[in-house]
Amino acid sequence: MTGRVTDQSASPELVNRNDDARPRARRERLWREVLGQELRRRRLDRRETLEAVALRAAVSLQYLSEVERGAKEPSSEVVAAIATALETTLLDLTAAVAVHLRGDHDGAVASTARGGYSLAA
Amino acid sequence: MTGRVTDQSASPELVNRNDDARPRARRERLWREVLGQELRRRRLDRRETLEAVALRAAVSLQYLSEVERGAKEPSSEVVAAIATALETTLLDLTAAVAVHLRGDHDGAVASTARGGYSLAA
Repeated sequence: MTGRVTDQSASPELVNRNDDARPRARRERLWREVLGQELRRRRLDRRETLEAVALRAAVSLQYLSEVERGAKEPSSEVVAAIATALETTLLDLTAAVAVHLRGDHDGAVASTARGGYSLAA
Repeated sequence: MTGRVTDQSASPELVNRNDDARPRARRERLWREVLGQELRRRRLDRRETLEAVALRAAVSLQYLSEVERGAKEPSSEVVAAIATALETTLLDLTAAVAVHLRGDHDGAVASTARGGYSLAA
């Protein structure tokens, strides 16, 4: 149970190793994960409830909650509708996602430079 | 058969105005459209066939073709797999998508400054 790391277990993040049917080790997070977090952040910045935003975006509260948690893959139309509901644009959202991924990347590089990921522990 | 436009035919771009079940007029392109173009651009820059990239990404040639045309919504896992097949990252792709959307936006602003969209024609 411990100490055993299989070579398929690519992980978008360090904490989460039991991922992948995907073909290679990969530490980058998925689009829907980073996007969901960004959508949540923006909603909370506006001090709005899931209900209020879901209503304006014409999606269910439950669905919006799942999108925010990265548990559901929203279609591009839904992303556009939620962006509108949050008075933002896909441009702003993709730029923000790129910034977060860049932060992940830079953090990972720094971590490696300090002696590698927790896999080494 | 002609001249009749149904109200479900949503439209991301200027040329196509009979949008919206979505709540407001919106000129921004959809994520999958801009992403698909970027994936195609990168594949062609590498002088690779759909077949070669599809094989490495473990998707069908037909599916990759539809993703490149913005006709199919790829899951985040598929986006990651295609990115890997093209030796790029989600970070690079989202940054490129943001650049394209920014270009659309700036172009639209410039066009408005010159006298508005073709709506005025």
